[in-house]
Amino acid sequence: MKRNLLAALALGFVLAFRGLATAQAPDPLPSWNDGKAKQSIVAFVAKVTKKGSPDFVSPAERIATFDNDGTLWAEQPMYFQLLFALDRVKALAPQHPEWKDKEPFASLLKGDVTNALAGGEHAMVEIVMATHAGMTTEDFEQVVKDWIATARHPVTKRPYTEMVYQPMLEVLTFLRANGFKTFIVSGGGVEFMRPWTERVYGIPPEQVVGSSVKMRFEMRDGAPLLVRLPEVHFVDDKEGKPVGIQEHIGRRPIAVFGNSDGDLQMLQWATAGRRLRFALYVHHTDATREWAYDRNSNIGRLHKGLDEAQAKGWTVVDMKQDWKVIFPIEKR
Amino acid sequence: MKRNLLAALALGFVLAFRGLATAQAPDPLPSWNDGKAKQSIVAFVAKVTKKGSPDFVSPAERIATFDNDGTLWAEQPMYFQLLFALDRVKALAPQHPEWKDKEPFASLLKGDVTNALAGGEHAMVEIVMATHAGMTTEDFEQVVKDWIATARHPVTKRPYTEMVYQPMLEVLTFLRANGFKTFIVSGGGVEFMRPWTERVYGIPPEQVVGSSVKMRFEMRDGAPLLVRLPEVHFVDDKEGKPVGIQEHIGRRPIAVFGNSDGDLQMLQWATAGRRLRFALYVHHTDATREWAYDRNSNIGRLHKGLDEAQAKGWTVVDMKQDWKVIFPIEKR
Repeated sequence: MKRNLLAALALGFVLAFRGLATAQAPDPLPSWNDGKAKQSIVAFVAKVTKKGSPDFVSPAERIATFDNDGTLWAEQPMYFQLLFALDRVKALAPQHPEWKDKEPFASLLKGDVTNALAGGEHAMVEIVMATHAGMTTEDFEQVVKDWIATARHPVTKRPYTEMVYQPMLEVLTFLRANGFKTFIVSGGGVEFMRPWTERVYGIPPEQVVGSSVKMRFEMRDGAPLLVRLPEVHFVDDKEGKPVGIQEHIGRRPIAVFGNSDGDLQMLQWATAGRRLRFALYVHHTDATREWAYDRNSNIGRLHKGLDEAQAKGWTVVDMKQDWKVIFPIEKR
Repeated sequence: MKRNLLAALALGFVLAFRGLATAQAPDPLPSWNDGKAKQSIVAFVAKVTKKGSPDFVSPAERIATFDNDGTLWAEQPMYFQLLFALDRVKALAPQHPEWKDKEPFASLLKGDVTNALAGGEHAMVEIVMATHAGMTTEDFEQVVKDWIATARHPVTKRPYTEMVYQPMLEVLTFLRANGFKTFIVSGGGVEFMRPWTERVYGIPPEQVVGSSVKMRFEMRDGAPLLVRLPEVHFVDDKEGKPVGIQEHIGRRPIAVFGNSDGDLQMLQWATAGRRLRFALYVHHTDATREWAYDRNSNIGRLHKGLDEAQAKGWTVVDMKQDWKVIFPIEKR
């Protein structure tokens, strides 16, 4: 009797296993239309993971880096971190009466963002430093967590964490399922991203590379603290991206994903490595479902990069043509 | 017949599984003598990995950081990276005829290390910059690989990668087997460590945090390069260690391992976190098998840290008492 039971269990196990082995593997990229872009991703992963193939790459070397703004989540009508900074200016204004007469804060508090940003990069740095520094790392983390949990995108009125690209979430999952380690390499602030990238992208804090301010270790009442200083430590954009990769990861990625000229040096650096490499640009072509912009945009300009992608045969994703859905909400 | 075969297989499986479950687990730290130090490590790991326990820590949060010099490998008669730099001065001297009349190089080339280093930190920085900068990252990596493969320790005449501590290798393996991610956080140069840490410690480049020089991205004949500049980017020592951890890892370690006052802030930072934390100092007490030094040593001074460890109940490893073997070669 007992023997029969075991035999039945074992038989069931064998049959179940056979069923699994012969079943069609599910499509790893269901939100992608069939086409050159999707095929290029699937083919690359197949080649570098096939043992014995000349293109095989050991799991330890399977490093993939992703830009964030415009590549993993949207960046219009302006970088989300800048919208965060503007919200912080409003929240902090009562503690800064001097801002009423001081640009760029005065314009911001009157709701005139255009005028506030007329000061260009200098104005931007002033806003970022006033809102991102002068507190401990733990306090800043809490501020970001509170904001990302409650703030809404000015156009769609959805949480920012729902403004991520469903097809790119699938690429992240697909790569990790094939032994890749996925990193963010973004011009955005590293401490602005880390509080939510693990939950939203499955990317842990230690795999986020970004821009940063200097920090100072100090003791307050016997407790150690890290204080964020209003001084730039590292700008992880353009020429800074390969530097950030070397500094943080110490290996050249074999797959890179970006959407703008700010990512070009990262794509150049990765693809100049030996053996098979993969580079992909997300091209924002869908004015209906998202935004359409490239060569003449102030945000996420893709001009030199588009030419170089065509010349070098990098994958260029036409969002309108290649993506069945853009945001996760469209799937539901 | 077939059914009987399956039944036999299934029965065998069940018996084998029972056997595994009741077999004694092998000692994860065989090079450690039984005692408080070993017990503290094993007890900590048991607590944070026990589901349902109030001390349970999710695998994603199981971050452990290790100092390198004096904690994972030896640091006497001087830091191995300094010995590397001295070898590089000799190798590069033919390209630098001006060094014959310029300190600290002139003394070094005459074999007078003491006089060369009499200039203190300034002399040290000059030597490091002259030997660690001015080439591409790939060229520097190759130089380190060649040196580590051939250079010998001045006292033991063994390769430097055999001057690692067997008991600490076991701790690294034990932690990783329990879901920890292990990082190096060292005052040493990050690019001096990365070429060999994966092979020797099982720690991949992206989990090595260290001091660094600035780098510049440039194009040479259409190929992108990263050039190492003779300018300090980050010093990952003392107050710099918590900063380096936050910058690179973005999470507070739950277990920290060091051997000197240069690690004290890292231990303070980690143990000030919420919930259960583990801190360990390696105390160099074995003048026969290794070196004995602490409060008055110029290299790896352990003075404030020893007092604080005693006051706070951190684990202090007495190398002479606690370690059955020190170097891997003693096991053979």
